[in-house]
Amino acid sequence: MRGNQTIVRAATTYGCKRFFVVTPLLDQRELAQKLIGHWQHGYGATYNPLRKRAFEIVGLQPSLKDVTQAIFNETGQNPQVVATTARLSEGAVSFGFLKERLCDGAAYLLLLGTAWGLDQSVLDKADFVLAPIKGHSDYNHLSVRSAASIMLDRLMGKHT
Amino acid sequence: MRGNQTIVRAATTYGCKRFFVVTPLLDQRELAQKLIGHWQHGYGATYNPLRKRAFEIVGLQPSLKDVTQAIFNETGQNPQVVATTARLSEGAVSFGFLKERLCDGAAYLLLLGTAWGLDQSVLDKADFVLAPIKGHSDYNHLSVRSAASIMLDRLMGKHT
Repeated sequence: MRGNQTIVRAATTYGCKRFFVVTPLLDQRELAQKLIGHWQHGYGATYNPLRKRAFEIVGLQPSLKDVTQAIFNETGQNPQVVATTARLSEGAVSFGFLKERLCDGAAYLLLLGTAWGLDQSVLDKADFVLAPIKGHSDYNHLSVRSAASIMLDRLMGKHT
Repeated sequence: MRGNQTIVRAATTYGCKRFFVVTPLLDQRELAQKLIGHWQHGYGATYNPLRKRAFEIVGLQPSLKDVTQAIFNETGQNPQVVATTARLSEGAVSFGFLKERLCDGAAYLLLLGTAWGLDQSVLDKADFVLAPIKGHSDYNHLSVRSAASIMLDRLMGKHT
């Protein structure tokens, strides 16, 4: 959850409505719920009210299907699913393309995978696959925390 | 050091030559050195050679003065010091301005502070203060990991 804390603060800063953590493992969801409870209602809520506010957008779900259902329940819309990957992918859309699409009033769900990334089956089923982030070297191994922060900034940041 | 691991991987991805961790506390530097040793020479180097490579750029120094001296020793140049802050600061330069400057052949040192940020005295002495990152809400509390990743992407990323 420590990585998620970084991501949820970035998601709140960039105006995301919700941040879902998906894991099929019940004990992982229970542990995550305990940590969220700490920042929302426990000592952490008083200690750091800014973090409390960030955690208001967090939801825990056992599967991607449950996430899209939760979004439908809240918005009345099936979200456009945007998968991300560090690999080059045929038909991938640019950040600029997606940034414009985000203004069309639809609900968008940006998917990131931990460790080895999203499964190919998830990429195949997504409405869009986002082009990988390019740095400035032949080394390209961003943590999921870095990748999420950079994607949010490219898609929703006000650049100066 | 967990946050630093995220930053060092981003720094390597974006082609930074060096990443310095600054703390006046000797025991903190010794602990950090142990962790770096793990990824560079210990089990971690075999387990994850990509991380080994990222850690090659890390240096530990007791003060900012020691960092600039180390850069002078390695490059023969006194670096242009760029301080960062989440607060609005008079005379702050834009990311676009700094991105162009980075091509001028000088050595640049980008400074980030943990927790409450850099001391005002550091901001006062810097050659440049970078404009704060703007998100898309009234909430603006990025972790230093997020901020570092986004700054590197804005200054040195190849945007699509």
